[in-house]
Amino acid sequence: MVGINEVNEAAKRIRNRIHRTPVLRCRTIDTLAGAEIHFKCENFQKVGAFKMRGASNAVFSLEDAAAARGVATHSSGNHAQALALAARMRGVPAYVVMPVTAPAVKKAAVAGYGAEIIDCEPTLQARERTLEEVVARTGAAFIHPYNDERVIAGQGTAALELLEEAGPLDIVMTPVGGGGLLSGTAIVCAAAVPSPLVFAGEPAGADDAARSLAAGRIIPSENPRTIADGLLTSLGSLTYPIIREKVAGIWTVDDPAIIAAMRLIWERMKIVVEPSSAVCLAAALARPREVAGKRVGIILSGGNVDLDRLPWHLHRAPEGRP
Amino acid sequence: MVGINEVNEAAKRIRNRIHRTPVLRCRTIDTLAGAEIHFKCENFQKVGAFKMRGASNAVFSLEDAAAARGVATHSSGNHAQALALAARMRGVPAYVVMPVTAPAVKKAAVAGYGAEIIDCEPTLQARERTLEEVVARTGAAFIHPYNDERVIAGQGTAALELLEEAGPLDIVMTPVGGGGLLSGTAIVCAAAVPSPLVFAGEPAGADDAARSLAAGRIIPSENPRTIADGLLTSLGSLTYPIIREKVAGIWTVDDPAIIAAMRLIWERMKIVVEPSSAVCLAAALARPREVAGKRVGIILSGGNVDLDRLPWHLHRAPEGRP
Repeated sequence: MVGINEVNEAAKRIRNRIHRTPVLRCRTIDTLAGAEIHFKCENFQKVGAFKMRGASNAVFSLEDAAAARGVATHSSGNHAQALALAARMRGVPAYVVMPVTAPAVKKAAVAGYGAEIIDCEPTLQARERTLEEVVARTGAAFIHPYNDERVIAGQGTAALELLEEAGPLDIVMTPVGGGGLLSGTAIVCAAAVPSPLVFAGEPAGADDAARSLAAGRIIPSENPRTIADGLLTSLGSLTYPIIREKVAGIWTVDDPAIIAAMRLIWERMKIVVEPSSAVCLAAALARPREVAGKRVGIILSGGNVDLDRLPWHLHRAPEGRP
Repeated sequence: MVGINEVNEAAKRIRNRIHRTPVLRCRTIDTLAGAEIHFKCENFQKVGAFKMRGASNAVFSLEDAAAARGVATHSSGNHAQALALAARMRGVPAYVVMPVTAPAVKKAAVAGYGAEIIDCEPTLQARERTLEEVVARTGAAFIHPYNDERVIAGQGTAALELLEEAGPLDIVMTPVGGGGLLSGTAIVCAAAVPSPLVFAGEPAGADDAARSLAAGRIIPSENPRTIADGLLTSLGSLTYPIIREKVAGIWTVDDPAIIAAMRLIWERMKIVVEPSSAVCLAAALARPREVAGKRVGIILSGGNVDLDRLPWHLHRAPEGRP
């Protein structure tokens, strides 16, 4: 099982390939939260998201012969861009399976990093079959977006840097989708002295992680509905056991609170974050008793957002603004 | 005349009262510009704009007896908020004359820092008469938004920090409205060794500074029309001579280019800047020969923007998006 040694090795491996992102504070938000919040800004990471950590650790973990055959994944999100960039940095091919329905702008971003895009029908079966065909044809190594020990170890490096920068923390929070960032963070915090409690922020409309922990088994995400479109996936066989063992709790929060927290970050911190990044702050603001007086670290997961479709516009349609 | 000594004194005076803002770089933008651009991020400054520097230098320059009577200004923009906060930090009253037509959100922001707002009719005469009445009644010190030596010296401290952080630069750029930031920056750059050339970015729809330099006298801004609403004012009797003597040129640029540069900064740097902040990058991108291979410093002046009225939405009305 992946542990703190793997995260430390990942940190050395990727150090010169990623940005060491800043940790920012905001007086207004501290006052609102009644806590001291340290924001680890992975929105400033390469490709605009923490995914660059796991993808580059995976790509640079490969032996030369395996790497030469390239890497492959299925993703229409930040992991696809991160894997494409990491492969380009190593000088090897990347193959990304994307549904034909994926937005053109996302395909263009992945192609812009030099990856080959392979279309598939927008079903789970078609995606997996297409990926198997690509791997069979090319010999590329499959790098799963989160259910991969190298990816989990890479994502954990954000928490390492956060603790180095902020000093001892009482609580560390990350959003949870598939659980790669959360499980990597939980490994780091469990090994830290003193050891912060780890809580995840999760959209109420995609609360499969909260339900999985309550049920004691992985409950897949079914028809998730949330503005936090990076958090639609279900926990994996590798991430679930780590989360069950090491995470103190999952704090769910509804979309209006996520949108309000996102807007607060934009207006007060003057930084661009995607909705998934705002889930933890929203969850913390909704739990004043749990965070009161605490030193809290929050990992802002990314900043890739469509500036033509900001959520506070989308939710205002009745007022005449789309 | 205000010079480098006054700027150095201002830097000492306000050091613990303002944020030392970061200097950021962006590989994508460097590639687009064919230059090495160092962005001084005053959008992260207190009240979200460089105006905090000049206002706090002015407020903390006052003798105790004068300060006790308070400070006053006319402004509906960032200077009003900055003066209000600086006065609150010193524990003295602030009086801000604002037209009755000023947006409620701006009045609320100024009142939120504890200033007393005095309404006036939206004419130049009413504004000046009302301000005179306030000063006569209270004995408050009038702090002009830019035509004030203490304000000019304070604004110059941003360039001091930029040069300390970035090292020698070939070019330093600021936007120009009334010329406070530009003249303070020009004083600092003229005294630096080596001495960067100073260029201003100015909206084509509010190009009074460019026309003033061409004409050899102050030409007031008349019916300016630009998205960069922080740059509508005319040069002042104190800022114009400094700019005429020390600024290498004014680069005008039209609103679509300003909006495109603003969006580029948001998308690629993941930071929130106001339209006025994007004028310099827009002007630099439009002059590839002038900046090619150069080390360029750009002061991003602020980040106060209405997230409900972003310019790329406003300019899309024909497509059905306001």
